[in-house]
Amino acid sequence: QLLYEGKAKKVFTSNNPDEVVFYFKDDATAFNAQKRGTIVNKGIVNNATSALFFPMLETIGIPTHFIKKISDREQICKKVSIIPLEFIVRNIFAGSTAKKLGIEEGVKPACTIFEICYKKDELGDPLINDYHAVALGLASHEELQLMYQYAAKINDFMVDYWDNKNIILVDFKIEFGKNSSGNIVLADEISPDTCRLWEKGTLNKLDKDRFRRDLGGVEEAYQLILKKMSH
Amino acid sequence: QLLYEGKAKKVFTSNNPDEVVFYFKDDATAFNAQKRGTIVNKGIVNNATSALFFPMLETIGIPTHFIKKISDREQICKKVSIIPLEFIVRNIFAGSTAKKLGIEEGVKPACTIFEICYKKDELGDPLINDYHAVALGLASHEELQLMYQYAAKINDFMVDYWDNKNIILVDFKIEFGKNSSGNIVLADEISPDTCRLWEKGTLNKLDKDRFRRDLGGVEEAYQLILKKMSH
Repeated sequence: QLLYEGKAKKVFTSNNPDEVVFYFKDDATAFNAQKRGTIVNKGIVNNATSALFFPMLETIGIPTHFIKKISDREQICKKVSIIPLEFIVRNIFAGSTAKKLGIEEGVKPACTIFEICYKKDELGDPLINDYHAVALGLASHEELQLMYQYAAKINDFMVDYWDNKNIILVDFKIEFGKNSSGNIVLADEISPDTCRLWEKGTLNKLDKDRFRRDLGGVEEAYQLILKKMSH
Repeated sequence: QLLYEGKAKKVFTSNNPDEVVFYFKDDATAFNAQKRGTIVNKGIVNNATSALFFPMLETIGIPTHFIKKISDREQICKKVSIIPLEFIVRNIFAGSTAKKLGIEEGVKPACTIFEICYKKDELGDPLINDYHAVALGLASHEELQLMYQYAAKINDFMVDYWDNKNIILVDFKIEFGKNSSGNIVLADEISPDTCRLWEKGTLNKLDKDRFRRDLGGVEEAYQLILKKMSH
């Protein structure tokens, strides 16, 4: 039974009331869904990259919603209520934030940048700060601190992971949820939809920016990322 | 000799190289200077309200650039280099932030909200967070903490001050500068241009929103604020 259909995934009930089944679609959207399209087999790649990353992150102490992958496009996850915040970590300035701050894409900031955005389509997911998040009742200061700590730990791990594969982790977006015990766990996905990944040297983009900016070779980039992760 | 002309003030050199003369104009701008106009005698009001507030804030431990008022529209201040950040404190949601967060104007947030915006006209003074400010080299984390502390102290003082005059301090914007010793001091102005002030009960707006929203009675509101401060 379909519980929820998002832009890139469907969520179904399972036999266990504490678990859900995620189905990863090929639908791609960008710029707050103003641009829509399809990236062939994206769902397969994103299911696979998430199913590879989440267990790795568990081993470094990040609790996640992930249980197991059950098919090319499906995985079983713990049922969580999503906290409507996007946590973004930036190692290099890129995209709309670079533009907004008047900085050229590719510049390395003096410090790693953490951001939170209020997940609300009709408002365009605006950048907010911790005071807004608390005032809006989205999270307490303590919960925010915990999620920032998780985000920093995930960044440290993933920067090294991709560096070993000759790829620069430019930035990424993660989401958290609360499980039935009220604990905060990493949810959603980690994939070329949610990370900016540049090939070292060439700085070729191997992520959703190929779709956003009509750069071509979108499917090939997603497949290359999956291939690199499988070795 | 004119050092700098801003939207609402001119800054002149004085005989003392560590001091400058501020001249308060009647020019009014809004929405990143897309709207322009004149508020008759605004310069006199804003010079007077600043000259009243800054010494009061000194007495509660806030260092400021203010030295003395020398005419209706002029005051002598210590020369500082302005830190290109606007600190905004919100006791009640109003204006563009309320809209951006999908909250009705007039709602009281669960906690006082502090914001920083990057003062850069060509970027439209975007909301940023502490990481952006540090990455852009605008301030260190320690300097930000000090300015937030000053902002909180100023808010506590001004909420009470206005409450005693039957006025609600909805929000305000302040700016800081560094003096010749490298110390951070409150700079710029405190006036109906930089504060939202609502009359208790009627919730009549007694600030620049009358100009922004073409509500009429703009000059009268500014004069009323000055009158209330003079008693």
